[in-house]
Amino acid sequence: GLAQSRQEGAGVLGCRHPVAEMLDLPFLPFCIFLGGLGFICVAFVSAWCQHWRGGFALDGSLQMFNWHPVLMVTGMVVLYGAAALVYRLPPAWSGPKLPWKVLHGALTLAAFSLAVLGLVAVFRFHNNHGTPNMYSLHSWLGLATVLLFSCQWLAGFSAFLLPWAPAWLRALYKPVHVFFGSTILMLSVASCVSGINEKLFFSLKNGTMDYKCLPAEAVFANTLGLLIILFGVLVLGALARPSWKRPDADSPDSCQPQLAQPW
Amino acid sequence: GLAQSRQEGAGVLGCRHPVAEMLDLPFLPFCIFLGGLGFICVAFVSAWCQHWRGGFALDGSLQMFNWHPVLMVTGMVVLYGAAALVYRLPPAWSGPKLPWKVLHGALTLAAFSLAVLGLVAVFRFHNNHGTPNMYSLHSWLGLATVLLFSCQWLAGFSAFLLPWAPAWLRALYKPVHVFFGSTILMLSVASCVSGINEKLFFSLKNGTMDYKCLPAEAVFANTLGLLIILFGVLVLGALARPSWKRPDADSPDSCQPQLAQPW
Repeated sequence: GLAQSRQEGAGVLGCRHPVAEMLDLPFLPFCIFLGGLGFICVAFVSAWCQHWRGGFALDGSLQMFNWHPVLMVTGMVVLYGAAALVYRLPPAWSGPKLPWKVLHGALTLAAFSLAVLGLVAVFRFHNNHGTPNMYSLHSWLGLATVLLFSCQWLAGFSAFLLPWAPAWLRALYKPVHVFFGSTILMLSVASCVSGINEKLFFSLKNGTMDYKCLPAEAVFANTLGLLIILFGVLVLGALARPSWKRPDADSPDSCQPQLAQPW
Repeated sequence: GLAQSRQEGAGVLGCRHPVAEMLDLPFLPFCIFLGGLGFICVAFVSAWCQHWRGGFALDGSLQMFNWHPVLMVTGMVVLYGAAALVYRLPPAWSGPKLPWKVLHGALTLAAFSLAVLGLVAVFRFHNNHGTPNMYSLHSWLGLATVLLFSCQWLAGFSAFLLPWAPAWLRALYKPVHVFFGSTILMLSVASCVSGINEKLFFSLKNGTMDYKCLPAEAVFANTLGLLIILFGVLVLGALARPSWKRPDADSPDSCQPQLAQPW
């Protein structure tokens, strides 16, 4: 059952000191904190675009561009992070794995759809204004990240949700999928940071409002950048934490480290 | 011995398919490739500053600024990455751990020293030109990364190299040190990406040379950004790979997962 699985998961740490036990962080409070942080990231990026950048529209104007940061932060960071942590939820540790796979696939598909809409917003804006696309490092990195994500989603869907893949292929691909899952999140965060930095240099140009003078908007958007980084680092830390991993011993299609051994 | 340790390390994967065995990547060829990639990153950033940005000087001019990207990429990414992988070298798997700890501490100290010099270069340049410091997201993230690195180095030195720390404290701190080690590398890479992006917007401003027109310099420096990301991702991947981790069962001061179990 669940309690036993938790016990086995914790057993990974081997000989545990009482201080270690004391400092052990339970997953659910962490998850609630992370959810709050994700909400704050979305609220910050929306408030930035609404309050300082003129709000939202669908007409190819600068207000259309404003959908780009909001959709990218919401899709490629917050929803993506939530999707990555699905298998860490204790209810996912027992019982059939399929519903959790479907949830993971649906959340990542939603994240990917928001990312595509985010790309549409910036390409429309550029094309409407005769601005070239795809020249900055931010654009190269961002598009590479979304393309990598599309490959990751298709490969994950084919290997883990379609029934044809043999167990050995799933076992072989799983660590690759896990590695690229974390990598895509890192690339997303790096894209967001370079994008916010670039946008502030574009927008804050004249005298007293110059980025160099650090007006309120710059402090606000810089803080947004740091919050996005904190969110990404916390998700990656949660993914790497051994005691929060689903013990896969009872899963028929898995070929994972048998960490739940006799101690 | 070494061969046995390797065997135990590989045993982490449990039931291995012949295809998995075939695709298994040996560490040393990977390491040589990574070393070559690190060298290319340093060569690219130096060539960028030398060929397009006017070369190097120590007089507080733009040529003094040019030391900033070179020192940061060399210190916070390439040397840092090399330092992080010290314990993955097979010779470090057997025998006393102390020489490898000293090497790890020395390489990270060298990386940190280059980072400090890199900060001196940019602060001197700003102060000489009356430019404010610390306003962009790049500067906030970069300085936070170097400060975090200084805490990490001091805590690592105190816990693992000074003799006073009890085994339980080392065991407790070790996963924290490992986590922040990877985190600092991610933050460094994100700082580099935002810094290169920002510098190109600063430097490529007039008509035909505009960043938007994607001149040769922009392609070159964007490529540098992608190579730095590739280097960072490969180091993080190597660190996460279970079969490349030093089996710590025989280390007296460790309290690691006992992965070398009877299969």
